[in-house]
Amino acid sequence: MMKLPSSITLCEVGLRDGLQNEKTPFSTERKLWLAKKLVEAGFSVIELGSFMSPKAVPQLADTDELYRQMGESPAELRALIANLKGVERAIACGCRKVKLNVSASRAHNLANLNKTPQESMEGFAACAQAAREAGIALSGSISMPFASPWEEKIPLEDVIAIVDTYLSIGVEEISLSDTSGMAVPSQVYEMCTLMQQRYPQVTWWMHFHNTRGLGIANMMAAMEAGITRFDTSFAGLGGCPFVPGAAGNIATEDVVYLLDRMGISTGINFDAVMEIGKQVTEWVGHPTDSYLLRAGTGMCGEASKH
Amino acid sequence: MMKLPSSITLCEVGLRDGLQNEKTPFSTERKLWLAKKLVEAGFSVIELGSFMSPKAVPQLADTDELYRQMGESPAELRALIANLKGVERAIACGCRKVKLNVSASRAHNLANLNKTPQESMEGFAACAQAAREAGIALSGSISMPFASPWEEKIPLEDVIAIVDTYLSIGVEEISLSDTSGMAVPSQVYEMCTLMQQRYPQVTWWMHFHNTRGLGIANMMAAMEAGITRFDTSFAGLGGCPFVPGAAGNIATEDVVYLLDRMGISTGINFDAVMEIGKQVTEWVGHPTDSYLLRAGTGMCGEASKH
Repeated sequence: MMKLPSSITLCEVGLRDGLQNEKTPFSTERKLWLAKKLVEAGFSVIELGSFMSPKAVPQLADTDELYRQMGESPAELRALIANLKGVERAIACGCRKVKLNVSASRAHNLANLNKTPQESMEGFAACAQAAREAGIALSGSISMPFASPWEEKIPLEDVIAIVDTYLSIGVEEISLSDTSGMAVPSQVYEMCTLMQQRYPQVTWWMHFHNTRGLGIANMMAAMEAGITRFDTSFAGLGGCPFVPGAAGNIATEDVVYLLDRMGISTGINFDAVMEIGKQVTEWVGHPTDSYLLRAGTGMCGEASKH
Repeated sequence: MMKLPSSITLCEVGLRDGLQNEKTPFSTERKLWLAKKLVEAGFSVIELGSFMSPKAVPQLADTDELYRQMGESPAELRALIANLKGVERAIACGCRKVKLNVSASRAHNLANLNKTPQESMEGFAACAQAAREAGIALSGSISMPFASPWEEKIPLEDVIAIVDTYLSIGVEEISLSDTSGMAVPSQVYEMCTLMQQRYPQVTWWMHFHNTRGLGIANMMAAMEAGITRFDTSFAGLGGCPFVPGAAGNIATEDVVYLLDRMGISTGINFDAVMEIGKQVTEWVGHPTDSYLLRAGTGMCGEASKH
């Protein structure tokens, strides 16, 4: 028997990581419909949007309004933030959980911001303090901990330095995000094993992109190493900022199908995510990278094509 | 560390399983160019075509001619056959290795041929004898040993009965072919473990389709169970007979990239398979399902798009 967890928690990131990569903006009304459908489908964690500059990410400029309209929810509704302004917006609209992000690639961070990752993180302490005072939960993500378009491989000590910084400001829920889709399963297994051994107090999430077709294999490797929390995106929306037109996040439909078939519980209804994925595909108006939406489950008599 | 083999043998099946699913026929000249490029790229096993009825598979009607033009090769050049006629054609054109095929799905075999898999295999003994007398090596494949569009799951004893029949006629090289793309990694791991324990004398191959995005994850699971031989297809060509337009075999470019990145040797040159994949994509004239052809390796400065 393969050693795998008996249950997995998924966070649907399509409303954030998916939609920010789409040219067609989604109305607040459509986002609200999707968010409510996701809660109904059984998601206990949803990334609802981000509090970035509306100029930088116009697709998510209505995140504040979306939180207001959602109101109380049985699901944890988290939002990505970049700085203190993000915490302020979270407080104002009733968002109860925010996520910080920094790149583990020194070259990436230097090219983008002319700062090392450590220098970038210096502003995070103020975010953590403001969030704590407002009773807002805080998590952190680390982009490109496995590899980046600049570096063949990221030195492990660079990732560790970021984790240590997060811990120093009280962030104990951390996501490793292979946003450039360059991780391979053996490396994921080693990284997950090492990180869990070194930091047993941390709640780990993994975020895999399918840029090179390895997203699900990487997720399996992380599961074999004991990881139980993963981000997925409806219809596989998302992308790789360095490869125009590349495949995006691992698709929610594909992951729920996989886990159902392996007898691993998620609390999420497969038919409901297929319905959401079909609606999203219709709205984005182009083919997507979800295999289950494309091929169906394959059983005879099933109307699999959409 | 993940437990993985240190080296893997790949069989390129694009010339057979890939091209038989394409509407655009490839000339013998193009096939010859591809076959020679594949040998140069380092493939030690190539599925060159099939000896089926030219009416049933017109794309591969020139397999005999292709063998004649290839002549002696350092690579093993195998062909798929259905019956004694196939062995006769192999003898006539100088093919030295043939592969039989039967479905493990009783419902599939009954629907197609009005015979159980066992009844279908009754003709295989004559094939084996004729091949042996002509000094032609023989292998066998089993389609849908994991699941089929008719059955949720295939009873293990049905797969075992086929393996036993193959062994009874002297076939000790056997491929498990997830042609409908319905296998999941936990199941692959168990099946591979069990089969190797039960039949240590058998040389096992695995053949995965990426219909539901699980091809590479299934390959990883098989590798973890100790399997070292896999079929792949250039540009990910192929398909699922039950899902028009579905993704095909796991792509050669993606698999060679993955194995290179994990330090697992194949003897196959990545740049060479990328060149072959790009040429194939141009010739088929439609987008394919190879992630590496789509996204490149992602390193800065690389001209990744084609």
